[in-house]
Formats: sequence, C-alpha cells, structure tokens
Amino acid sequence: MRKMRIGKAFTLLEPGPVVLVTTNDGRKNNVMTISWTMVVDFTPMFALTTGPWNYSFAALERTKECVIAIPTVDLLDTVVGVGTCSGSDTDKFARYGLTPIQGKLVRAPLIKQCLANIECRVVDIVRRHNILVLRGLVAYFDSARREKRTIHAVGDGTFIVDGRKLTRRKMMWSKIPAGL
Amino acid sequence: MRKMRIGKAFTLLEPGPVVLVTTNDGRKNNVMTISWTMVVDFTPMFALTTGPWNYSFAALERTKECVIAIPTVDLLDTVVGVGTCSGSDTDKFARYGLTPIQGKLVRAPLIKQCLANIECRVVDIVRRHNILVLRGLVAYFDSARREKRTIHAVGDGTFIVDGRKLTRRKMMWSKIPAGL
Repeated sequence: MRKMRIGKAFTLLEPGPVVLVTTNDGRKNNVMTISWTMVVDFTPMFALTTGPWNYSFAALERTKECVIAIPTVDLLDTVVGVGTCSGSDTDKFARYGLTPIQGKLVRAPLIKQCLANIECRVVDIVRRHNILVLRGLVAYFDSARREKRTIHAVGDGTFIVDGRKLTRRKMMWSKIPAGL
Repeated sequence: MRKMRIGKAFTLLEPGPVVLVTTNDGRKNNVMTISWTMVVDFTPMFALTTGPWNYSFAALERTKECVIAIPTVDLLDTVVGVGTCSGSDTDKFARYGLTPIQGKLVRAPLIKQCLANIECRVVDIVRRHNILVLRGLVAYFDSARREKRTIHAVGDGTFIVDGRKLTRRKMMWSKIPAGL
C-alpha cells in the first residue's frame, strides 16, 4: 500500500464503487458499507449520505474523521456482511478478518485488504439532507494487488463488477486535471 | 420507454453511472454530462455537484427542473462530446443527434436514446458546497433496448463499462426496500 498523489484520489470514487468507511470512536474501530458517495471537487472533497440511524455516525460526528477504503470483487461477501450487521454489537474487523493499519493523520484505520484507502476529515454536515462533506487528506493504493475490479451496488441486492476499460483521453484532454 | 415505479428509481443511480442532465430554460433544451451524483434517500432524492461554471446551472437554478438520463456504452462518444462543449454556443441535442421527448411534469426533455430517464425537481441548492438536491418525480426505463451496460467515468479520460452482475439478495434481504 503506497501513497498516491492526493490530487488523483478523486478518481477512486468518481466511478461510483461501493466503499467501506472506517471510524474509531476512541475505544474501538468500526466499519460500515456505503454506496451513496460522490466527488465534490478535485482537491478532493467528497460527499456521502449517512445519519443517526447508522452506528458509525456518532463517531463520525464526534471525531470528524474517517477512512474511505475501496474493496474489490473478491471482498464482496465482506462488503455485504459489513453492511448487514451493526458495530453496536459486533466487532466487524474481527468478524470479517479485516486488518486495521494506522494512517498518518486520522485515528480511523486503513484496511489492509482493500485496493485503496483515503484518510478523510469531516468538514461539514448538511443535516437537513444527512449529507457529510469530507476532505481527502492522504490516499494510498495497493498496486501490487492482482484483483483490481471494484463493485457497484445496485441497491436491490445485486452488484455490478467492473468490466473493460475504454479510453477517451484524446477527446477529453481539455477537461482532464493536470498530471492525470 | 415505459414508466418505472418511482420507488425503484434510486437503483438507476446507486451504481454510479455517468449521466446526462437535461434542462430547458424556456427557450431551448440543453444537456450536460455529470459523473458526480449520489442517492440521498429511497423516495428517491439525489444529490449532484455543479455550479455557476456550468452553463446549465442558470437554467437549473431558475426553472428548478431537470431530467437525469442514463446512457449506455454505445453512447460513450456522445457522453464525452456533450461533456466537452458548452450549451452557450452549441445546440447539443442537434449536434449529437439526441431526440428530446416531452415528460409528464417538467419542461426539461427526456432523451429517447438513453436507457432510463428520471424527471426531477431541484429542492435545494447547498451553495457552500455546490451541491444540488433533487427529488425524482417520474422514472422511465427502456427495457426493449438491447444494450444495457452503463459506463463509469474514472475522471482521467478513461471509463469502466459494466461487467458481470452478482447477486447477494439472500444475504441482504433485511436491507432491501420492499418491492425490489
């Protein structure tokens, strides 16, 4: 897991993969599955939808920190498992064999098994819509990992796996941020 | 293009496809390419990031209406083309051969060539983050269309096409909204 230039980190979330979001409330680590995320700017800022109905929300609100971890298709059962139990009565890291790694700037752990991780700070909570706005601080990418296909939740219990990649870099050059 | 139950429309955006967003400013139709969207709730509410730097923003702000259209991989060059020119000097519907269809509740047009369309009302603009919050009003799906693979923008000029679909409906039954 090597550091990735932070100006490139928005490309991890722009395709819309399901993600794992870790928190640490000062006593223990927790992790939730989230599909409702988007990029807000290239610096990068991200938004995600969550609220008091999620056990992780209290830790997000208090610590103002989290890690967005990007799983790949080999972790699908973990992603679904993490999304269907609660940190209120389950140590999800232990139950799903996830290995926490200490990041640089936040207490929430990176997940060793994931393809990428982004340490984030919660910079705003838009309470009337349950939208959290996050600043990405440090990003990591495991380029040694063989499986790199991420997964996209449909919301009805099915998931779409990344298929082939097409390039339109020439057509799009005027819109691609410098250095990408 | 048949109507789809509105309670199912969030499943069109949850996987994170690149979308086309149409507007009508009272004089003419326009369309932009947007990759920064997310679901906000199941009713459905959606969020997207845009702002005054986009020509469509003035129409969105004034009319408070738009259509989110979901293109498939055969429309990739159209998606990129629409995203790299401006409605300020281009009739993008004419230039890219897109056929506008009148919806039920908003003046912004559906796009005949797309797999799905969602008529939306802008219910809020969170100006400090350039986040628009939309309510989906009426949804349509073209089940007769053969190509159904959507595309996911990476942000660096490349795109990921939908690959195979996996189901975890049994594992997830407790989290799937009724009727899906």
